[in-house]
Amino acid sequence: MQPSTSPTRFAYLGPEGTFAEAALSSAVDTGGGTRTPRPSVPATLAAVRSGDADAGLVPLENSVEGSVPATMDGLADGDPLIITREVFLPVAFTLAVRPGTTLDAVRSVASHPHALAQTGRWLETNLPGITPLPASSTAAAAAAVAAGEHDAAVCAAIAAERYGLEALADDIADHAGAVTRFVLVSRPGPLPAPTGNDKTSLVAVVGDRTGALLDLLREFAARGISLTRIESRPTRQRLGVYSFSLDCEGHIADRRVGEALAALHRVCEDVRFLGSYPRADGRQNCPVPAESADDAFAEAGDWLDRVRSGAV
Amino acid sequence: MQPSTSPTRFAYLGPEGTFAEAALSSAVDTGGGTRTPRPSVPATLAAVRSGDADAGLVPLENSVEGSVPATMDGLADGDPLIITREVFLPVAFTLAVRPGTTLDAVRSVASHPHALAQTGRWLETNLPGITPLPASSTAAAAAAVAAGEHDAAVCAAIAAERYGLEALADDIADHAGAVTRFVLVSRPGPLPAPTGNDKTSLVAVVGDRTGALLDLLREFAARGISLTRIESRPTRQRLGVYSFSLDCEGHIADRRVGEALAALHRVCEDVRFLGSYPRADGRQNCPVPAESADDAFAEAGDWLDRVRSGAV
Amino acid sequence: MQPSTSPTRFAYLGPEGTFAEAALSSAVDTGGGTRTPRPSVPATLAAVRSGDADAGLVPLENSVEGSVPATMDGLADGDPLIITREVFLPVAFTLAVRPGTTLDAVRSVASHPHALAQTGRWLETNLPGITPLPASSTAAAAAAVAAGEHDAAVCAAIAAERYGLEALADDIADHAGAVTRFVLVSRPGPLPAPTGNDKTSLVAVVGDRTGALLDLLREFAARGISLTRIESRPTRQRLGVYSFSLDCEGHIADRRVGEALAALHRVCEDVRFLGSYPRADGRQNCPVPAESADDAFAEAGDWLDRVRSGAV
Amino acid sequence: MQPSTSPTRFAYLGPEGTFAEAALSSAVDTGGGTRTPRPSVPATLAAVRSGDADAGLVPLENSVEGSVPATMDGLADGDPLIITREVFLPVAFTLAVRPGTTLDAVRSVASHPHALAQTGRWLETNLPGITPLPASSTAAAAAAVAAGEHDAAVCAAIAAERYGLEALADDIADHAGAVTRFVLVSRPGPLPAPTGNDKTSLVAVVGDRTGALLDLLREFAARGISLTRIESRPTRQRLGVYSFSLDCEGHIADRRVGEALAALHRVCEDVRFLGSYPRADGRQNCPVPAESADDAFAEAGDWLDRVRSGAV
Repeated sequence: MQPSTSPTRFAYLGPEGTFAEAALSSAVDTGGGTRTPRPSVPATLAAVRSGDADAGLVPLENSVEGSVPATMDGLADGDPLIITREVFLPVAFTLAVRPGTTLDAVRSVASHPHALAQTGRWLETNLPGITPLPASSTAAAAAAVAAGEHDAAVCAAIAAERYGLEALADDIADHAGAVTRFVLVSRPGPLPAPTGNDKTSLVAVVGDRTGALLDLLREFAARGISLTRIESRPTRQRLGVYSFSLDCEGHIADRRVGEALAALHRVCEDVRFLGSYPRADGRQNCPVPAESADDAFAEAGDWLDRVRSGAV
Repeated sequence: MQPSTSPTRFAYLGPEGTFAEAALSSAVDTGGGTRTPRPSVPATLAAVRSGDADAGLVPLENSVEGSVPATMDGLADGDPLIITREVFLPVAFTLAVRPGTTLDAVRSVASHPHALAQTGRWLETNLPGITPLPASSTAAAAAAVAAGEHDAAVCAAIAAERYGLEALADDIADHAGAVTRFVLVSRPGPLPAPTGNDKTSLVAVVGDRTGALLDLLREFAARGISLTRIESRPTRQRLGVYSFSLDCEGHIADRRVGEALAALHRVCEDVRFLGSYPRADGRQNCPVPAESADDAFAEAGDWLDRVRSGAV
Repeated sequence: MQPSTSPTRFAYLGPEGTFAEAALSSAVDTGGGTRTPRPSVPATLAAVRSGDADAGLVPLENSVEGSVPATMDGLADGDPLIITREVFLPVAFTLAVRPGTTLDAVRSVASHPHALAQTGRWLETNLPGITPLPASSTAAAAAAVAAGEHDAAVCAAIAAERYGLEALADDIADHAGAVTRFVLVSRPGPLPAPTGNDKTSLVAVVGDRTGALLDLLREFAARGISLTRIESRPTRQRLGVYSFSLDCEGHIADRRVGEALAALHRVCEDVRFLGSYPRADGRQNCPVPAESADDAFAEAGDWLDRVRSGAV
Repeated sequence: MQPSTSPTRFAYLGPEGTFAEAALSSAVDTGGGTRTPRPSVPATLAAVRSGDADAGLVPLENSVEGSVPATMDGLADGDPLIITREVFLPVAFTLAVRPGTTLDAVRSVASHPHALAQTGRWLETNLPGITPLPASSTAAAAAAVAAGEHDAAVCAAIAAERYGLEALADDIADHAGAVTRFVLVSRPGPLPAPTGNDKTSLVAVVGDRTGALLDLLREFAARGISLTRIESRPTRQRLGVYSFSLDCEGHIADRRVGEALAALHRVCEDVRFLGSYPRADGRQNCPVPAESADDAFAEAGDWLDRVRSGAV
């Protein structure tokens, strides 16, 4: 049993019925456990850190409602937390109404401002003349519709279901294909076992000099490790340093990844390991070059031992 | 006269009274010109592209109301636009009320959900028991207060002023020091003149192979150019490529920057120049190493000419 | 007419009949010109520098008689000289005797000590019991045989011919396949025209810091240029610097090579161009990657001009 | 006891009285042991490989008499040999005569052709009109003087001493400061203990592609290891590969050096370790950066263990 990946008390960026809850459902079987919505990303992370929750689900990239920098910064600072799973959720907006309401009868529509922005064209075309109303979340809009305050909500399918609403239209985003990436985080503990198609996340802080990032990245490239994401982050607290948030292919249990991270630990001002977990974006990691595979490292280590001992 | 930096018709991410308008005011003297709020980042960029506006102001990093990925992606795709200026605006929230209202008398408070999230602790402490109400923007909340719909708004100082409100409290953000970076964009035209402390922005698309990013970055490092921001961007349209959004120190008129960009143009799948403009974050660029200064490039070019001609 | 590649007065590492003369014959049609042997590599280079000769032929790698460091150092220091041609000559030793002498009748054999060392096994097997005698050059040994001082000489075929000797045996080196590389040098002047399969030689001096060589080499790698030779050279005169002698593929007239050399001129303590000349080792240069071809540089330069002018 | 560094039967590039013997004397106390001259570098190496000798001394760089490529290639191929010591010997030429002979009385002078070349100017000035005679070694010339065959020899001081000659003049090289580097080699066995100022030698074979050398060198640079020598070597036997002969600072027992060599073992076609031994050129290694010191590696390894175990 892996405590870190089989928690029973889940926190998530609420309220109920938001995309984060949909992501949580798709990620883990929360059957025997509890799910508690939290009002913000920091509150969700705090619940995990304090032990009130075993794991927390928060958006990391391209979220509709959550502020993603909040997640980045929330993981980079404070007590350590480890990502144990990633979840990719298509951003699919539904126009939800009380059962029986027809499109003609819709006189008001509400949602989180970002959701309204992402469905603006559909709303103008299909609900012309109606000024969308802001809500604090897509789920809050659905709840308000259920309560009779508005006629329609732009929300996730899960919110329609939860509040007993009907979907008048699905997939109403102006641009199809948007995806939000969520991560499930826990306090440090046994890592998810390598699956052969994993990612590793970390934050590295380097001195502010030309070429510092280059030196950092070559530790990956020299070991045949591809990056899947990199983002510089402002570090206002500490002048003269730069912080980078990175995802790379592979698991820290892989020798190439472990050695690369140990090298970063030496050459960077600071490195925070944020977890190794199964890749879930539907892609396969790049094939590992023969010279970067575990057995190549093992063989090289054996050779070094022999040479050092004078046997060769 | 530089048309690109002295436009007369400005668009900005509206509505009036938002942080974007405050940033616009701090950035340019719009005295003889017009300012037109636009409902979204894409709408603001579209107004500039179509010629309806000469320049547009949009948030690029850490914005309260605007969705920053919208700006990144909006500049990377579509007809070319050039950044001619950057503006850093402290995220300073004000609690605005109708003149005469005291804190005790506040029974309702409204704002954009992100602004409410960033002032949550202050609101809990100072307005306990009051559930904040969402608005589509901080300025919309201020307007609603002016109209008597709510008692207080969390908004920018400019919104309080514009709607005839009074500030009951300033700087009520839970975390001090947050800054939003805005950029002013125009259609291609004469670039802002180098000032000696400039930044250059670009988007580079590289093939999906280990080390591709390293090859890209070494074009900067080899010429003594520091990066100030890097962010990988998903490119869903094109499989097998990665896109990076970058800011570096220096102006494209500098030889080191020009040669680096020309090198990227050769080795990348695609490079989009997004402008060279005065650095405005209050920092000075790193000193340019002697071997990367313009006269070092000039001297090397002269040497090469002499050698090629057989004179040496 | 290219003065630098069509000289009429040739100097070479003598004496007559050595491998250097054979290399000169194979390299250039000296028909209407003169050939003057010089006693040493420095003397040969000095003759060219002073104008006594138009061109000089000296060994650069793996020579039998000449001291190769003398050539390396002789080109790196002093007035500039330019390599206009390289010549690869198989090290083919002949056992030369006066006409009519049979192997049985050979009682003494002479040659340069290095030639004796390289044919030691053959001599032991075929002339057992005979102690080889040193000569100051292979040609001097041949001359001594012609003069009746010794019975046989280990020398180049050209020496046998020149001194009226007969070859009792050819290709008597213990290890087949050795090749000596010679270069023809001139005072600076018009360079040999690019042929599409050229090499460029240079000496680069860099500061004594970890990574200095790496920075130097990446100027080549970043432009798709392969090295064919690299050698660190002691620089006793100047503490704190390292000197490297390099050959790379391509001609300085190629844009990738020119730009790489100009970059070295900026970042190195010193760069001395030693010539661009047709590759003569029977190999083809690596295919030039599309992004490093001349038209890619031209296209990138055009793009940069357009971007700088504000046209894009 | 370290068999590899305390051998009792020494072979060296002969004959007796050459610079190699002088180097051997300066390198080791051969008191209770034997010294056997060998006729060539290959013969010296073969004596060690076969067990006829415990250690062999051969020139590696800038030798007067020995052919240095012979040493490079002789160590790169064949059964493994390990360098256990390096010796730097100033190239100091003496004009040696039989006791009582004055300079005026010298009518003939002999030496190895390379020694004659390096003292040519002195001989012309001080012995005008006398044509130097070749000998197979500087020591052979001294022996011939002792035997009355010639009047003077250009040789090492040790040869004068050994053959009962007197030095008429010392330090007669045209260019002062030349130094020859010799190495003492043994069959594999316990390595010399690290001294804090060591060098490591190796041969690396890499595929023939642009950037292969760069990838090799960055394994050193990334770990703060400076190179002190690099030389590309022809590999005629195997097409499509390049061979490099390298010396770097540090001992293979150092973690940074060990890890760098293990990395080369993974990424190169072949790596041959040629020994770690005390630096003897009178220079100190570059200070090891803090992040490349042994304890930084140890600390990083501990951190990695903790992270992998889930403790952080």
